Amino acid sequence: MFGFKKRWNPLLKHCFVTGGSSGAGLGVAKVLAQNGAHVSIVARDPAKLQRALEVLETVRHNPKQVFRAYSFAVNTEQGSAAAIKAASEPFDGRCPDAFFMCAGASRPGFFVEQTEESLRAGMEMTFYAQAFTALAATKAMVQQGIKGKVVFCASILGYFSMVGYSTYSPGKFALRGLAETLHSEFMLYGIDVHIAFPGTIHSPGLEEENMCKPKITLKIEETDEGATPDVVAKAILDGVRSGKFHINVDFLGDVFRASTAGATERNSYALDWVYALIGYIGLPIWRKSVNAQVLKHRDEHEGYLRERGLRP
Amino acid sequence: MFGFKKRWNPLLKHCFVTGGSSGAGLGVAKVLAQNGAHVSIVARDPAKLQRALEVLETVRHNPKQVFRAYSFAVNTEQGSAAAIKAASEPFDGRCPDAFFMCAGASRPGFFVEQTEESLRAGMEMTFYAQAFTALAATKAMVQQGIKGKVVFCASILGYFSMVGYSTYSPGKFALRGLAETLHSEFMLYGIDVHIAFPGTIHSPGLEEENMCKPKITLKIEETDEGATPDVVAKAILDGVRSGKFHINVDFLGDVFRASTAGATERNSYALDWVYALIGYIGLPIWRKSVNAQVLKHRDEHEGYLRERGLRP
Repeated sequence: MFGFKKRWNPLLKHCFVTGGSSGAGLGVAKVLAQNGAHVSIVARDPAKLQRALEVLETVRHNPKQVFRAYSFAVNTEQGSAAAIKAASEPFDGRCPDAFFMCAGASRPGFFVEQTEESLRAGMEMTFYAQAFTALAATKAMVQQGIKGKVVFCASILGYFSMVGYSTYSPGKFALRGLAETLHSEFMLYGIDVHIAFPGTIHSPGLEEENMCKPKITLKIEETDEGATPDVVAKAILDGVRSGKFHINVDFLGDVFRASTAGATERNSYALDWVYALIGYIGLPIWRKSVNAQVLKHRDEHEGYLRERGLRP
Repeated sequence: MFGFKKRWNPLLKHCFVTGGSSGAGLGVAKVLAQNGAHVSIVARDPAKLQRALEVLETVRHNPKQVFRAYSFAVNTEQGSAAAIKAASEPFDGRCPDAFFMCAGASRPGFFVEQTEESLRAGMEMTFYAQAFTALAATKAMVQQGIKGKVVFCASILGYFSMVGYSTYSPGKFALRGLAETLHSEFMLYGIDVHIAFPGTIHSPGLEEENMCKPKITLKIEETDEGATPDVVAKAILDGVRSGKFHINVDFLGDVFRASTAGATERNSYALDWVYALIGYIGLPIWRKSVNAQVLKHRDEHEGYLRERGLRP
């Protein structure tokens, strides 16, 4: 800010974005393109990738920028490594400078209705959808001696949780744990680690998620306004530019960050104190109101359980 | 404390303990036996289970207590459900009153040396080793209308992380996320959720863990004294008795808990304020000293990477 810390500039840096064909991932790809970066987007659906590439062209910053799309499933190390290798080819095999891991999805529901398969699928869609890209990216950067960036996209549900999110919060908490390990470990390489904690994002993913979300969870979230993918993406790039480890999109994110910081690197020692104080007083009050809503839902839930044969 | 909250008494309650044949799990089984509970221990190795049963006999509190051992792998829902079904048989099919999930292990290492297999194995040993028991237990309790207890055993590395723990901290963070979801959701059933965050435990598991632990991680942990399984187990039972959601074993655990609480239920609104203040000031200082140790290790690590062909 005052010249003490050089801000990162994406201009003609090669940025690799998973989940880059829609939602927050496409938002991140767009804001990187607007700011002059080379952008490689990765997702599964070739048709969506093609449409996303056309969107990137509309916000092109300069004629040197390379925009490419790659169809890979990144929730295996092999898939992630193959995507990184393919994306490195137009750059003479040099691996990307920054990895934005925006792949993921959420399928909420009551825990009692989950199965081994659905819990495992939840972990695939949250943690593994990003962890293996980080692993393949790390190996490539260490091998090539590139002091790049690894940017995870968690969720505000990586700071707290509530009814309905047993298939989602564990994986988002796990991403926080992984990012915190790597933030310490990557000092050995000079690789930067960032992790974003956006709240509700208005995206095609949210519509699918809400179709299976318990009524009580939808009710608790009623007052949540959410943000567009573009707003979230801009906050993520701002956070990466200014070197923040934990990146938040809104006031509530900052309150949760400061209130759960522990030994995590602070963004601002002075301002975080204010956020932490607000959280210390405000979050238990908020939690009480959520608890009251859950308790009020008990009778309706009894009927729900009996209908489904989960109670005799 | 002043009669406002009834303390839980394990006397002749049926307690189900996974990882119950050694380490913290055996410690928990012992302290439950000492306090008059029926105890079912579950682990894989029949010989170890037999020895553990003999230990339980030495601390028997009353002649009515039933001690049984069951050999099952609990890191699948099917395995956990079968173990619970077997343990319910001596009680006319009634499922246990309290589930203590102490199964788990740690295999630390540098992230750059991990593979898809080792990251997945880490999640099995940390998160899945407890999550599927919780799932099978929940279904049994909801089906039978039992207002029981679910007790997870995370680690202080579920509050923070550092170099070497990329296969461990994510799963322990994930357990925190799962427990936080269920703490909210199980208000629908009157089932209590607890989660313990012990530090280093002197157990056979620690010796195996230290064999693959990076030198830098061992060095940072040099000043950590650790606790015996019996001390940890006593703290866990005390926490469950007094109805604490997050259970800590030592002062550092309380500091981390209060400093990362966010919207998590507090143990004491007044005392937690003091712990949080200590953490707000002390933990960044501790983190700086860890960072300095990691940075000092850079040259040695360069040699390590080259030896293993991870750097050209």
